[in-house]
Amino acid sequence: MSEITATYIVHDAKHNPEKKAEGIALGLTVGSWTDLPELDQKQLKKHKGRVVSVEGSGLDTNSETVATIKIAYPAINFSPDLPAILTTVFGKLSLDGKVKLVDLDFGNELKKEFPGPRFGIEGIRRKLGVYDRPLLMSIFKGVIGRDMEFLLKQLKEQSLGGVDLIKDDEILFENELTPFEKRIALGKQVLDEVYESTGHRTLYAANLTGRTTQLRDKARRAAELGADALLFNVFAYGLDVLQELREDDEIGIPIMAHPAVSGALTSAVEYGFSHSLLLGKLLRYAGADFSLFPSPYGSVALEKQQAISIAEALTAVDQFKTTFPVPSAGIHPGMVPLLVRDFGVDSIINAGGGVHGHPGGAQGGGKAFRQAIETVLQGKTLEEGAHEQEELKIAIGLWGSAEAVEK
Amino acid sequence: MSEITATYIVHDAKHNPEKKAEGIALGLTVGSWTDLPELDQKQLKKHKGRVVSVEGSGLDTNSETVATIKIAYPAINFSPDLPAILTTVFGKLSLDGKVKLVDLDFGNELKKEFPGPRFGIEGIRRKLGVYDRPLLMSIFKGVIGRDMEFLLKQLKEQSLGGVDLIKDDEILFENELTPFEKRIALGKQVLDEVYESTGHRTLYAANLTGRTTQLRDKARRAAELGADALLFNVFAYGLDVLQELREDDEIGIPIMAHPAVSGALTSAVEYGFSHSLLLGKLLRYAGADFSLFPSPYGSVALEKQQAISIAEALTAVDQFKTTFPVPSAGIHPGMVPLLVRDFGVDSIINAGGGVHGHPGGAQGGGKAFRQAIETVLQGKTLEEGAHEQEELKIAIGLWGSAEAVEK
Repeated sequence: MSEITATYIVHDAKHNPEKKAEGIALGLTVGSWTDLPELDQKQLKKHKGRVVSVEGSGLDTNSETVATIKIAYPAINFSPDLPAILTTVFGKLSLDGKVKLVDLDFGNELKKEFPGPRFGIEGIRRKLGVYDRPLLMSIFKGVIGRDMEFLLKQLKEQSLGGVDLIKDDEILFENELTPFEKRIALGKQVLDEVYESTGHRTLYAANLTGRTTQLRDKARRAAELGADALLFNVFAYGLDVLQELREDDEIGIPIMAHPAVSGALTSAVEYGFSHSLLLGKLLRYAGADFSLFPSPYGSVALEKQQAISIAEALTAVDQFKTTFPVPSAGIHPGMVPLLVRDFGVDSIINAGGGVHGHPGGAQGGGKAFRQAIETVLQGKTLEEGAHEQEELKIAIGLWGSAEAVEK
Repeated sequence: MSEITATYIVHDAKHNPEKKAEGIALGLTVGSWTDLPELDQKQLKKHKGRVVSVEGSGLDTNSETVATIKIAYPAINFSPDLPAILTTVFGKLSLDGKVKLVDLDFGNELKKEFPGPRFGIEGIRRKLGVYDRPLLMSIFKGVIGRDMEFLLKQLKEQSLGGVDLIKDDEILFENELTPFEKRIALGKQVLDEVYESTGHRTLYAANLTGRTTQLRDKARRAAELGADALLFNVFAYGLDVLQELREDDEIGIPIMAHPAVSGALTSAVEYGFSHSLLLGKLLRYAGADFSLFPSPYGSVALEKQQAISIAEALTAVDQFKTTFPVPSAGIHPGMVPLLVRDFGVDSIINAGGGVHGHPGGAQGGGKAFRQAIETVLQGKTLEEGAHEQEELKIAIGLWGSAEAVEK
């Protein structure tokens, strides 16, 4: 019988996490048990939630008992979709005091109902023909209120700098100056020109926005126009919307999940979802090819352990393709040693200000990052790499560098 | 020029909330300002975010400066839909340290893009012909794994008890024993029979579940079958999905928003959304006719001030119809004085165990609640009411009662 097993961390003022666990297992499935007639128990047995384990870990600063609780919910109770699963395992329970949903273990039968990424790390690498280094992504800067010429110029500069991917700003919505379809069509021309003149290919992820039911048609149209990928603010919509975009074969292009709004769900220690579950496992199961999240080093920073846990969930052994981890925010070339150490070769180095803020412009910034990546993969320090490489030298002079001395 | 003004509470370790506010206003709109050429400033002026106010309120226990910040974002920057608005005002920002989104003030132009409830309090009262008292709602109990006969029997008992509305359990999904369409069709028969024999009308809200793109067809089919209302786990899907259901004239029946999963977004003091914004204003603007939330008295309790703030946002003077506040969870007849005092006549008293757990069954429980409501509206104490009314007397004996002595 297929199940989903949820792991929670609860803070229990009543100091009886075993009772709380039993209450969850029953309350979110058959309601009650011991007072049921035997015949009813027989009928309802396959629907009954089960306490898998309760492990106390002492008292918190408010003298509440902290415990890790695992509950198994029979899959027969819900339809095999994320809204039903979330409502079952964290619907009413999310409102019931201090409880954090740390992990979900999908039974093998249940996993079959989810698509995982269409391309994943392998597929994205194949599109680019780049297999042996972290990819480099850059973000448009200050494009709100700007016209198409401004945007295309930025696109070209970034591509000439050697970045592998360029993503829209997540706050660039449908607008008259740089409409979605036109961005895609004209952006493609620019990137094709760069490819023809330099041999370097850059993929462009356009921001898919608008009303929910219009997204699929819009995404299909984007695919027809030759869009390379779609950026998607999944947490402003819903995980199931992402999954439906992934499952639509008429769309069929990579999807980049942006973490906008997700901080409201993950930031609190005692409430909400763990980072690894929301930005890791669930995005991967639902079908994101890329997952962006705050890096541990930059301006909008996540604890290192949390950031790494996301990357691990995106790439752990599972029946799904792996999702590209994209630690982001406040990244400059001097951080490349740390990024490679912590996220490995199968990750994406993503920068906005660290590309555009380079004295040599986005082109110089892109080159500095590519030089930094090459330097690190050669086992050299950035100081060493900066001797021979002008753009890297300038970047290090401006932002400094952090060598990955300790693991 | 239309704007949306967001109110945040931030905890700033750098003790410079003014600088933080300026960073938000620029970072989430035009990116930078003072270093822009004059010509660019002229072009971008109408896109630039604006700090409306910054009010410090001292230090928190971690010695961080707490401040209330208001930022106005020009509506020209985003498409007039909730995903774009949430991504703008709380996208990246939700990931940036301790920041809670407390309120959103939609400009009048922008409000026109949102539907509000189709029926609202007035429309629901008209359906029932009940104008002068709080409505009474009850919830099915322990129906997972049960067959249609079991469910219909519960439905009938609840209706015979005099409840005005009956809602599905939010964890009852599409299933073979009690499928959605059959529940609606057969449930309607049962409730029509009760109406014919007693003259009492009960509305039944069926749980709309499944994959996102299937919801509208399913909801239309429900409306064709004569469904009275739909229960919807909006936070497992997305606010825009609710709005699309509301806007669909082929659906055209009341929508009851369930707060499942919303605790992950609202519970933390320093992160996420305020209760009044998420379960109040946004649900109302998006079109919910009912909003369920934890009452301040029961098993899954919300702070009283929070619960009341939700009800206020649902019913405040605005251009939209009002949404019925439904304070829920752990409610028994003895709490009716408190509910009427705190939520007034224009609210719904909603109970599960407090109806089914009555020694007289759901019928007795419903009657006890109706008696309690009548008693309170007559200005009597429940003790007084219990003298003449048997079911109420039994309920008070079992659960006790709380008189609303202090305001």
